[in-house]
Amino acid sequence: MCHISTLDQIKIAYIGGGSQGWARSLMSDLSIDERMSGTVALYDLDFEAAQKNEEIGNHSGDGRWRYEAVSTLKKALSGADIVIISILPGSLEDMEIDVHFPERCGIYQSVGDTVGPGGIIRGLRAVPMFAEIARAIRDYAPESWVINYTNPMSVCTRVLYKVFPGIKAIGCCHEVFGTQKLLAEMVTERLGVEVLRREDIRVNVLGINHFTWITEASYRHIDLLPIFHEFSAHYGESGYELEGESWRDSVFRSAHRVAFDLFEMYGAIPAAGDRHLAEFLPGPYLKQPELWKFHLTSVSFRKQDRDEKRKETERLIVQKRGVAGKASGEEGVNIIAALLGLGEIVTNVNVPNQGQVSNLPLQAIVETNALITRNSVQPIFSGALPKGVEMIATRHVSNQEAVAESGLTKDRGLAFQAFLNDPLVTIDRSDAEQLFDHMLAKHQLM
Amino acid sequence: MCHISTLDQIKIAYIGGGSQGWARSLMSDLSIDERMSGTVALYDLDFEAAQKNEEIGNHSGDGRWRYEAVSTLKKALSGADIVIISILPGSLEDMEIDVHFPERCGIYQSVGDTVGPGGIIRGLRAVPMFAEIARAIRDYAPESWVINYTNPMSVCTRVLYKVFPGIKAIGCCHEVFGTQKLLAEMVTERLGVEVLRREDIRVNVLGINHFTWITEASYRHIDLLPIFHEFSAHYGESGYELEGESWRDSVFRSAHRVAFDLFEMYGAIPAAGDRHLAEFLPGPYLKQPELWKFHLTSVSFRKQDRDEKRKETERLIVQKRGVAGKASGEEGVNIIAALLGLGEIVTNVNVPNQGQVSNLPLQAIVETNALITRNSVQPIFSGALPKGVEMIATRHVSNQEAVAESGLTKDRGLAFQAFLNDPLVTIDRSDAEQLFDHMLAKHQLM
Amino acid sequence: MCHISTLDQIKIAYIGGGSQGWARSLMSDLSIDERMSGTVALYDLDFEAAQKNEEIGNHSGDGRWRYEAVSTLKKALSGADIVIISILPGSLEDMEIDVHFPERCGIYQSVGDTVGPGGIIRGLRAVPMFAEIARAIRDYAPESWVINYTNPMSVCTRVLYKVFPGIKAIGCCHEVFGTQKLLAEMVTERLGVEVLRREDIRVNVLGINHFTWITEASYRHIDLLPIFHEFSAHYGESGYELEGESWRDSVFRSAHRVAFDLFEMYGAIPAAGDRHLAEFLPGPYLKQPELWKFHLTSVSFRKQDRDEKRKETERLIVQKRGVAGKASGEEGVNIIAALLGLGEIVTNVNVPNQGQVSNLPLQAIVETNALITRNSVQPIFSGALPKGVEMIATRHVSNQEAVAESGLTKDRGLAFQAFLNDPLVTIDRSDAEQLFDHMLAKHQLM
Amino acid sequence: MCHISTLDQIKIAYIGGGSQGWARSLMSDLSIDERMSGTVALYDLDFEAAQKNEEIGNHSGDGRWRYEAVSTLKKALSGADIVIISILPGSLEDMEIDVHFPERCGIYQSVGDTVGPGGIIRGLRAVPMFAEIARAIRDYAPESWVINYTNPMSVCTRVLYKVFPGIKAIGCCHEVFGTQKLLAEMVTERLGVEVLRREDIRVNVLGINHFTWITEASYRHIDLLPIFHEFSAHYGESGYELEGESWRDSVFRSAHRVAFDLFEMYGAIPAAGDRHLAEFLPGPYLKQPELWKFHLTSVSFRKQDRDEKRKETERLIVQKRGVAGKASGEEGVNIIAALLGLGEIVTNVNVPNQGQVSNLPLQAIVETNALITRNSVQPIFSGALPKGVEMIATRHVSNQEAVAESGLTKDRGLAFQAFLNDPLVTIDRSDAEQLFDHMLAKHQLM
Repeated sequence: MCHISTLDQIKIAYIGGGSQGWARSLMSDLSIDERMSGTVALYDLDFEAAQKNEEIGNHSGDGRWRYEAVSTLKKALSGADIVIISILPGSLEDMEIDVHFPERCGIYQSVGDTVGPGGIIRGLRAVPMFAEIARAIRDYAPESWVINYTNPMSVCTRVLYKVFPGIKAIGCCHEVFGTQKLLAEMVTERLGVEVLRREDIRVNVLGINHFTWITEASYRHIDLLPIFHEFSAHYGESGYELEGESWRDSVFRSAHRVAFDLFEMYGAIPAAGDRHLAEFLPGPYLKQPELWKFHLTSVSFRKQDRDEKRKETERLIVQKRGVAGKASGEEGVNIIAALLGLGEIVTNVNVPNQGQVSNLPLQAIVETNALITRNSVQPIFSGALPKGVEMIATRHVSNQEAVAESGLTKDRGLAFQAFLNDPLVTIDRSDAEQLFDHMLAKHQLM
Repeated sequence: MCHISTLDQIKIAYIGGGSQGWARSLMSDLSIDERMSGTVALYDLDFEAAQKNEEIGNHSGDGRWRYEAVSTLKKALSGADIVIISILPGSLEDMEIDVHFPERCGIYQSVGDTVGPGGIIRGLRAVPMFAEIARAIRDYAPESWVINYTNPMSVCTRVLYKVFPGIKAIGCCHEVFGTQKLLAEMVTERLGVEVLRREDIRVNVLGINHFTWITEASYRHIDLLPIFHEFSAHYGESGYELEGESWRDSVFRSAHRVAFDLFEMYGAIPAAGDRHLAEFLPGPYLKQPELWKFHLTSVSFRKQDRDEKRKETERLIVQKRGVAGKASGEEGVNIIAALLGLGEIVTNVNVPNQGQVSNLPLQAIVETNALITRNSVQPIFSGALPKGVEMIATRHVSNQEAVAESGLTKDRGLAFQAFLNDPLVTIDRSDAEQLFDHMLAKHQLM
Repeated sequence: MCHISTLDQIKIAYIGGGSQGWARSLMSDLSIDERMSGTVALYDLDFEAAQKNEEIGNHSGDGRWRYEAVSTLKKALSGADIVIISILPGSLEDMEIDVHFPERCGIYQSVGDTVGPGGIIRGLRAVPMFAEIARAIRDYAPESWVINYTNPMSVCTRVLYKVFPGIKAIGCCHEVFGTQKLLAEMVTERLGVEVLRREDIRVNVLGINHFTWITEASYRHIDLLPIFHEFSAHYGESGYELEGESWRDSVFRSAHRVAFDLFEMYGAIPAAGDRHLAEFLPGPYLKQPELWKFHLTSVSFRKQDRDEKRKETERLIVQKRGVAGKASGEEGVNIIAALLGLGEIVTNVNVPNQGQVSNLPLQAIVETNALITRNSVQPIFSGALPKGVEMIATRHVSNQEAVAESGLTKDRGLAFQAFLNDPLVTIDRSDAEQLFDHMLAKHQLM
Repeated sequence: MCHISTLDQIKIAYIGGGSQGWARSLMSDLSIDERMSGTVALYDLDFEAAQKNEEIGNHSGDGRWRYEAVSTLKKALSGADIVIISILPGSLEDMEIDVHFPERCGIYQSVGDTVGPGGIIRGLRAVPMFAEIARAIRDYAPESWVINYTNPMSVCTRVLYKVFPGIKAIGCCHEVFGTQKLLAEMVTERLGVEVLRREDIRVNVLGINHFTWITEASYRHIDLLPIFHEFSAHYGESGYELEGESWRDSVFRSAHRVAFDLFEMYGAIPAAGDRHLAEFLPGPYLKQPELWKFHLTSVSFRKQDRDEKRKETERLIVQKRGVAGKASGEEGVNIIAALLGLGEIVTNVNVPNQGQVSNLPLQAIVETNALITRNSVQPIFSGALPKGVEMIATRHVSNQEAVAESGLTKDRGLAFQAFLNDPLVTIDRSDAEQLFDHMLAKHQLM
């Protein structure tokens, strides 16, 4: 990283390089960025999947980027300037346990990958994987910049720093963008002004991943908080759907009723989708998702989706085609460019707290805006969470620390204490103990 | 305080001086301590009760101490060296709502004066009272030492410091002594050695009031933790009753099964009675107190007890008798003596955290040992709570801060967020909102 | 501030509005910025001077800005969106004592307005003035943004926050820009590339005002630290003069030899002029300024300069002319625009440390980059000063805190301890005591 | 340590076991303590010296303690419950350079083992020795309690913790006792009361070793600060000598004029001998020790003293005698007893700052009172140093950190920055550089 003198021989290591989702977005975004070129090394436990992406990648764009499936972490990382981590910790079958097993105890989860019983067990599964990755980065690419997309974001990123404190890693997530879009539509509706790009909605974001909050928002010289107050009051009951995005049409969509409801309670704008928000607190949402106009994403849906993507993959392979060069809406490539010295950007990232969130513990992985420039990510001081939000966030931060710690030390007792401390776990301790044991047993963890 | 040159003209201000419990213990302990003499000013909203204590006090002991009922805080405090606060925030009728009203929603409480719905509402009621007291101390006795016995201890003491940051206040509680007695009996049973005084069991105590923990315990050169491990395993199922204290005979007693159970889970010895411990976490205890061998203390019992004490009061008045000069087992008088320069003691007190509990927030009221010497209380650094205990304690610390804050600023929203964040409040938010509204309404608070 | 809905009725309050330097730059910069318009209220102890600036201001630009001399702080501040503070704390005669009196004891100062005996005495003089300003802002313009240009920057800004903790104040200084220019010329010389704007040199700045350091610097994708290493080695002896700026021609210029020397010692790039740097440590520089190729700025020069500016003022008044609409190179107007929601900028400011400099005390006024957006200044996490620099900076931070504190409380003993602790005060304590007494006496302070 | 069940088989490892001073005091104190018995393993680079102490030790007391010279750290430490470190880092010839070499540059030092050029160079010499010891303790006696007597105390103890963070180490020093004796005599003189034991003077001590301060002092119920105020004013000019201790008769004595002078300036009582105090700040003392009535201890005196002790050693060996069983006045054996569970004591120790000194950096080695009980040393919260003292202490803390760090990493530049930052180094940087180079060269360090 430190010695880059040209921008045409960049090496990106992609861990989870067989991915059919994020990896394809990257290919697409790289193919339309004219400033850089180089190599993308694709590493995946499923080597065949990586090979397929190699083929697809090499058919994408104008050849400025060369894709290569590699068989070891060492090969992927050696010489890398940028490392992307986007893996599924376990299989969709594992995820089925995470999400649906707790339903037997009356615990419903809308995503199950961040907090809740599912998020915790997934975290315990992910910790040793991220420990291995962190060690490999330390050994083969200590100066590289690492961008993690994997959930549970906070736990995974925390483990990277715990195992290799010198790592230069950030966690990236697009949830905040959705709230910027909502605000942009609000501006149009309320002020009759069209907002060109969601980035033009400036926001002060803070919190932990998937439970981030906006305490200041503006469009040019206009303060958006008072406007959101009216907006939220107006659509609190009915919900508001982004243009062309009926909440019923996709399991990932909502009518933002949970966000509106939390705004009324806490006075700050929740900056994540309703599916994520609902899992962080013992509210009424998960019991009546229909009423609140969002979905519990079933793993059977995810399997179906995976199967469709597989078919699409085969099609591309057979037809020797690449991905379409279309902006994905993600910021990964812009972040990479900024890290290489091409422009600077301010965007939200997940990194250890150095005070940027003043009322969450230091070292916890928090999400705020950061200034990204050449070889540098600097968190921006973002103030304090509202007191009521702090209470809930602190509880999850404790849990995330315990999951990271117990995953590394195999301290089953500590892991269970985190499990028991999760807001969704309102069942009796003995029932919780059984549930925990069963979920762990299925995964043969600990 | 600073100018004391003799120890025979000490002035103690007793706020809540009509008390039939703590005030009588103080009279008793003062009457048998030969080192000091002076005046006790008794202030109470119920002036008549204070006058009765004046009479009883002046019939107690050898006349070294003069008792005087006074009608204003100003009179009580002016010139005071020591201030004792031991009030009931509200009436037993108020407490009936605190403790029993939530039962309609299935929330049972064993004490209801510290945490849980009852503790929170009682706290909100106490805050303005303590704010008034703090202002009066600032104005009339800023150099005095203040000893608070009132619950909720953490909230009340926090308010004293918030309103008058220069205050010299400590919160005192005897719960830890009970655990020392338990350990002393254990030493006798296991090692065949008789322990003369419970203070000879040295303990490292830390936590928040009524949720304190012992991480080190010794008797002379003997480490008691491994012995407690066996002891707890042995009596975990059956329970253990202190000598002559059958748990069934008093609503204040238990067989320590909750403490043993928590010890198994967290690895540190809980240093409070089972009734208190059970309220801090969403465990199985409160649903089956019989099984766990402790009692839910009903307020009707408290009323009955009050009535009996009233009769005893009348008897003493009629017979022109004072209290018997018998050591109460409390440490108040020893603490007063130490603050005046007579000996030094190490005992557990509640004061703002300056790092003495390394993993609880600074400024939170925490309970640890402190060294008490002339005009000085210095907390002793006591290390970290076990991670699992920290998780729960942090949650209560957040709540206590929110109760203190919202009680001062009348921020009803924040108060409700604390209510909702209490581990015993596992009911739906809308139900919780109703419960909260009803409890507040009964008290005409906020 | 919060209610601005148009950008054509902005009110700027200028404290020190009779200034012939900074005030004229502002007029100039405002006159060429097309985005905003409104009123500038000019307040000055010398009302006549403010009136002259009113005239000159109203002849500057196209009339979008109206200038008005006002006779009280209240009039200036009421309704202000932006407050600028640029005062001389005392007279040039006072400054003569600050700078030249210590020479009798062999203590030479190149500026004498920040640290050293002169900086400390000037600070003590400024504290009550800034306390008064802070109270006025609290009372009349609590929501305004305050931009301070007055030295000693750290002390003055600290007092603003001590007296009115809710203030939204930043200290601004252009010293860093000079170092960016130096780096830009270096890029041209070493890489043959022309840098268009000094802002294109990205720097990570941290430290305290006039003793700031650059630990990262880049131009596009190029790391400038290794290049500066060579550059500094090459010009260390001879010095380097900015294009067209012979160091001999102006008392404000230097050949950067002090900066090069400090870079060799500490490994980070000093980001202030040599005149300022030399005063912060007991180095060899002040004894031989000629050798080190910089100047000790005499106050007689400042008087001469003032007189010339006075003549220019009279000329403008007589000729009914305004200032020329020419960019001053300062960032004030861009900062104002950003605060009003017009674009966002990243630039260096002085604000209380929230952790942005990880190894200086919290709350100390530190200088780092910040992100400035609508109604918001957010410091950017900037890491740690090199250990050796930290040692020196910490010493000054202690002193600045002591000056602010003692200036507010009139604690002469504490003020003297700061004086004695200054690195330039290497004389005997009794001599220092005499010097301190004399300097204070001259100013009739304390 | 954890498994001690008897007190008759204690093992003490003595590193520096050939010592003719501290080791003999220990022998003496152990011989008269009836509560414990066991083995003392004597390890010294000078094995012969250790053997001599073995002989002398085995002739001391009643045979409850067995002394054994051992040839390796491993042998000394294996199985040790207590480790004592009391070494001379280098030879007296080395110390000659530390103390007297800087005199060529006009820098005089009264002790030269803590701060100043001598203390810094001695520290650099000690660091690798303590790093080796720390590693050996980690490997062979990780659960033992380590008592360090070696200077520079703060640097040596810091290195123990840096190298083995899990170490249980304290630094012990008797300087505070001297001030307690002074206060005891003051009580007798001013109040006509005889104080039986210096421990009866209760003090709140805080600071860094040899620069500790008493902010509260009392005897029974009497506040000693106002009395000391008069006492200091009375004896400020003439000085005060402890009974029977004329300052002229010993190079270790003084008339406390430096302490009185510092008290006048800072308002707290310095709790170390004048020889130590004088070295911490650039005061007038070292230039005129006669005037201030204390001595610069020359190393030639130390050599002479050593030679006399050697003769005494030979005498004991020849006569097959042990040391006299006489209390040394040190607290080492009481501390050992307390750590083993025999009584508890409150005394001053040097340990990492966890907040016990609220205005010095965390982790710095600070000196305050601590509560010592079985297997436990708990610092007592001691408040803040006076601001003026904080300024000076912080500077030394920075330096000590830099010496520890640079001694471990061999960072010569950082070591020099500490050297330059020492208050006694008021010479020009180039002169300082030469001095530093010469002193290091003599020691062949770095």
